[in-house]
Amino acid sequence: MFDLLATDPNSSARRGRLTTPHGVIETPVFMPVGTQGTVKAMHPDELRSLNSQIILGNTYHLWVRPGMDIIREAGGLHSFMNWDRPILTDSGGFQVFSLAKLRKIKEEGCYFQNHVDGTPMFLGPETAMEIQATLGSDIAMLFDECTPWPCTHDEAKKSMELTLRWAQRCREWVDQNRPQTGGGAQLHFPIVQGSTYQDLRERCARELVAMDFPGYAVGGLSVGEPEEDMMRIAEWTCPILPENKPRYAMGLGTPPQIVELIARGIDMFDCVIPTRLARNGTAFTHEGLMNLRNAQYAKDFRPIAEDTHPMCLGFSRAYIRHLVNTQEVLGLRLISLHNLHFYASLTSRARLAIEQGCFAEFRAEVISRYKSRSEIPES
Amino acid sequence: MFDLLATDPNSSARRGRLTTPHGVIETPVFMPVGTQGTVKAMHPDELRSLNSQIILGNTYHLWVRPGMDIIREAGGLHSFMNWDRPILTDSGGFQVFSLAKLRKIKEEGCYFQNHVDGTPMFLGPETAMEIQATLGSDIAMLFDECTPWPCTHDEAKKSMELTLRWAQRCREWVDQNRPQTGGGAQLHFPIVQGSTYQDLRERCARELVAMDFPGYAVGGLSVGEPEEDMMRIAEWTCPILPENKPRYAMGLGTPPQIVELIARGIDMFDCVIPTRLARNGTAFTHEGLMNLRNAQYAKDFRPIAEDTHPMCLGFSRAYIRHLVNTQEVLGLRLISLHNLHFYASLTSRARLAIEQGCFAEFRAEVISRYKSRSEIPES
Repeated sequence: MFDLLATDPNSSARRGRLTTPHGVIETPVFMPVGTQGTVKAMHPDELRSLNSQIILGNTYHLWVRPGMDIIREAGGLHSFMNWDRPILTDSGGFQVFSLAKLRKIKEEGCYFQNHVDGTPMFLGPETAMEIQATLGSDIAMLFDECTPWPCTHDEAKKSMELTLRWAQRCREWVDQNRPQTGGGAQLHFPIVQGSTYQDLRERCARELVAMDFPGYAVGGLSVGEPEEDMMRIAEWTCPILPENKPRYAMGLGTPPQIVELIARGIDMFDCVIPTRLARNGTAFTHEGLMNLRNAQYAKDFRPIAEDTHPMCLGFSRAYIRHLVNTQEVLGLRLISLHNLHFYASLTSRARLAIEQGCFAEFRAEVISRYKSRSEIPES
Repeated sequence: MFDLLATDPNSSARRGRLTTPHGVIETPVFMPVGTQGTVKAMHPDELRSLNSQIILGNTYHLWVRPGMDIIREAGGLHSFMNWDRPILTDSGGFQVFSLAKLRKIKEEGCYFQNHVDGTPMFLGPETAMEIQATLGSDIAMLFDECTPWPCTHDEAKKSMELTLRWAQRCREWVDQNRPQTGGGAQLHFPIVQGSTYQDLRERCARELVAMDFPGYAVGGLSVGEPEEDMMRIAEWTCPILPENKPRYAMGLGTPPQIVELIARGIDMFDCVIPTRLARNGTAFTHEGLMNLRNAQYAKDFRPIAEDTHPMCLGFSRAYIRHLVNTQEVLGLRLISLHNLHFYASLTSRARLAIEQGCFAEFRAEVISRYKSRSEIPES
């Protein structure tokens, strides 16, 4: 299911191939986020033109709107949103913890009111897996508690142990129900938690590995912790995870973070910042961020970048700045497309570099061209 | 410059071909509106896929933002917005009268404060033509006063006479400056005013015809007057306009209105309603309007229409409803595309019907399939 095609001799970077019911995914891979059943401002044809191999869907959002009745009648999320390539869905837990109101976490799961109309809802391990079975995603995430940062060792331990007990219940639901999608079995990835504590991360990873899943995620990253912690967590966790299974760092990151995490053995990434920064008029370039609202671009008739997406060629920075200033949708579309293209190129270049044995040079180049890692806002 | 290819024996409908510096336009034609240098939510590639032959640009909006300095340095509006087919620009007058603040109309032109930052500005006949020369549109409109509705015969007469004097001054500026675009001469169309008064409309049309322009517009329509008045105004005006020149009804209209005005001898149309109604979740169909927010579409998995734009096929009414409800840009994009496709099809079917001698049947079919003409909001 996951073939390791090449490894980097100077780091833990890997070049792999993950087979899912809706298609093959070349790793390292960046997955655009389609929160509400659409990658913001993008048409599926454009995602295909970006070589998007897999996109993300958000269980919580789709459960609240349009609801599982509609998705079920549509024949699943692929058919509903007109996307025939792989989809990964999160478990809904992260959104319940970050968006929902009046939430109460108990052993059985989480009681809360949804953020749209305040309806009382309950999400637990079995419900989360059942919803994802209805969505018919290729990869479903196990329900976990995303430990907040900062937290004490004791809090992190309790939270991580709850995640382990929930993982076991998810596993049991999956074993009993064996969800299928796209003519094959849905894959299920558990999530390693444990905050910034090495012993907890290692124990969580070991216990999840013992349960033998087809892939593993590292969660609780990019929740406010220093970047050094993020890197350390990957360094503690990845060596414990099986070499022949894909590893997914959830909700990350900036271009240098992605490259540094690839170097630590991560294979899969998802992040809202390419589309979120686009809404703010900000484009990614090899030299860092370009805020197209700035007056310096008012008469800059060059394209955003020479190697932008083909659909963005022919449009100048001055024109896109005008579109952003007048809040025209085309501005958002062009910058989103450019940014997703930038991220797609970043991971495709990483794949090539690992294959060709020049990942160290690629890594050094990306890091050095970004003047400072911290100039990009966190996701 | 304008070839009359066919006429309908049972009405005044005409099939023509207008040659402009940036290309040939088959008439009757519908022109999508690109207010701020972009047809809202559309990429130029999509406009080409819609067979958009010509689009509209708004002089007032582009003058205020990004301003003529930037457009001039970009090499004109075509180059600025990356559109190589014909563009028609309005004179800016209509927006000054409808959007600007503290406006004062004098013989020399109009003093006002712009609606964005309140900057005092002046727009007169010469300025309007100079701005349009900088924009480099294929067809530039003469500066007119758009007479409000209702108004007395005396008010309408004074306003129309001002429009005639301004037309003369526009003509003089054009004769002196001979603006060029796309390797040819910019075309200039005057605007027939006169409100709902037959004698004023006829006099205005006659005096403008005497000045010999390459095309003529009918203005002051769809400003609140009853639809019967709109039709009567076309009936009074068109017979006076030269047969061998194109006729443009500004800012119109609903599908039945367009067909009825084609039957009265109008060749060109522009209207914001396809894109404006899309922002409201409303799609045009052969049977009338479809408000996709309605609960009846929640589990309707058919496309908006069988003959929708190819890029909208594969997306169900239920999915588009979900996108509209969650305010996702893709919903706006798909409905805009569908509605512009509907309008493009309407005029291409009209062209074919005139060519094939079955315009009467086409006209009857469009009118009968729209249950009521008045169910569509005015532009």
